[in-house]
Amino acid sequence: MAAMDAFESQLAKLFGTLSPHMRRLGFEIVSLQGGICVARLPYDPQWVGDITSGVLHGGVVTSLLDTAGGASVLSANGAPISLATLDLRIDYLRAARPEQSLFARVECYKKTQHIAFARGIAYEALESEPVASMAATYMLRTQTVRAASSA
Amino acid sequence: MAAMDAFESQLAKLFGTLSPHMRRLGFEIVSLQGGICVARLPYDPQWVGDITSGVLHGGVVTSLLDTAGGASVLSANGAPISLATLDLRIDYLRAARPEQSLFARVECYKKTQHIAFARGIAYEALESEPVASMAATYMLRTQTVRAASSA
Amino acid sequence: MAAMDAFESQLAKLFGTLSPHMRRLGFEIVSLQGGICVARLPYDPQWVGDITSGVLHGGVVTSLLDTAGGASVLSANGAPISLATLDLRIDYLRAARPEQSLFARVECYKKTQHIAFARGIAYEALESEPVASMAATYMLRTQTVRAASSA
Amino acid sequence: MAAMDAFESQLAKLFGTLSPHMRRLGFEIVSLQGGICVARLPYDPQWVGDITSGVLHGGVVTSLLDTAGGASVLSANGAPISLATLDLRIDYLRAARPEQSLFARVECYKKTQHIAFARGIAYEALESEPVASMAATYMLRTQTVRAASSA
Repeated sequence: MAAMDAFESQLAKLFGTLSPHMRRLGFEIVSLQGGICVARLPYDPQWVGDITSGVLHGGVVTSLLDTAGGASVLSANGAPISLATLDLRIDYLRAARPEQSLFARVECYKKTQHIAFARGIAYEALESEPVASMAATYMLRTQTVRAASSA
Repeated sequence: MAAMDAFESQLAKLFGTLSPHMRRLGFEIVSLQGGICVARLPYDPQWVGDITSGVLHGGVVTSLLDTAGGASVLSANGAPISLATLDLRIDYLRAARPEQSLFARVECYKKTQHIAFARGIAYEALESEPVASMAATYMLRTQTVRAASSA
Repeated sequence: MAAMDAFESQLAKLFGTLSPHMRRLGFEIVSLQGGICVARLPYDPQWVGDITSGVLHGGVVTSLLDTAGGASVLSANGAPISLATLDLRIDYLRAARPEQSLFARVECYKKTQHIAFARGIAYEALESEPVASMAATYMLRTQTVRAASSA
Repeated sequence: MAAMDAFESQLAKLFGTLSPHMRRLGFEIVSLQGGICVARLPYDPQWVGDITSGVLHGGVVTSLLDTAGGASVLSANGAPISLATLDLRIDYLRAARPEQSLFARVECYKKTQHIAFARGIAYEALESEPVASMAATYMLRTQTVRAASSA
């Protein structure tokens, strides 16, 4: 497994901090290289969707996957670029377990001039036991380089 | 336009409060009747996705639409039922405008014994100028009636 | 209801015939104006998916909706343009009834420079009793004008 | 790689033949085991979507992926069951190459009592160069065992 290059290392440190929403959620990138992003969201009762079960709200899982997907696209691109999520599908396979960090592994598996395609999963501990699955497209806008965001 | 019935009125008051995540976001149901939910999220810099533009994070827009969709299914059902989002597609048509409340209008347009289908849009002021479009399916689980959640 | 303009009239006549697949399916455009396409597919036992029930294959329903969506984008564009389906979601609400024509009503409800968004339904007789629901994005490629296709 | 068991072998032979539409398309299952289906569609000018480029219609690619997905669910189930596609997302990554067979590899990666989740890709020769990507959910109906169909 190759190490992150300089761009990816910097991105991994900065990406979560550029978005107030993701910073509040505690989003952090665990690894980022070759178009693959592994990210983490700590468990926090504030983001629970169902008070009786204690599981995270589906929208939070989507935020995690959407943002990890944006990072994977930037990694695949190898240079800063302005991007926006065009559309996203999420399948909720089961409820997330309470009290556990949630991880996402998202891969940018295809990139054209204007569009990038990413897919991935969210899981607590084992990738083989996913909580949710996602597929998304991102629009690449080659404008002046501003802070990349997948908002 | 018929008035909300007793179940819908109660649901409209309670639905946002059952989820810590949605309560923090300030989610509230504006109207709920006949399988159609109109809901509102106040603008808050905390939920911004892109610090340079000030627009809300896409995951927040998804939370709004997903939750409004869950309420629309309950309204269509006419009685409490446990439900979970099965899968959801969101299309981001444009960036949401900063400093403005975001509304969602979601309709449960088909319900079978186990599955309900909903679709809707998010917008700031005019439904004819949507920010995002969604389509989702919800699984109905006729268990003992616990607090309905679309987590 | 405004009449189809010259471009839309020509498109309505030609669109189905440009694609061997759609011509074989018997696809025809019923009306096309203002970004809204109504199209029709005659029932044919050849395209049945389930021999015991006689209902059309889901892929055929998708072909109908995808192609009607492409036509709606061209109508919204008001001039020939090369386009391709980027991604499409279809929800199957119920089985199509055997021996009945299938109609699609698809609207291009948002168009940017590079991307167009369409959504619609398939039904036999009443729009209020849809068979399937779709949401799709199309990529607009402003190349030299070749025959428009949503392949 | 384990061999197909008796049920999977029989299914692989019969599955394409149960649907007039898929039989006309020339659909055949190449391998089917452990919830993974590899299927094949021969190139045929009849199913072309764009007469100028000669590429297959997107709806045909969807038919291939949808049907392979249905087979993967049956394989994961290990016994006959009635099923129906609930919803499906397809991403078109690039145009399929003319004159080449199209393959699909779809995996049923999660199955609950009523719902199965599948995802996969279509490609001509190399899985690493996909034409399209899909994600779908299937509804399992434990009715009397009739011919399984994903229509």
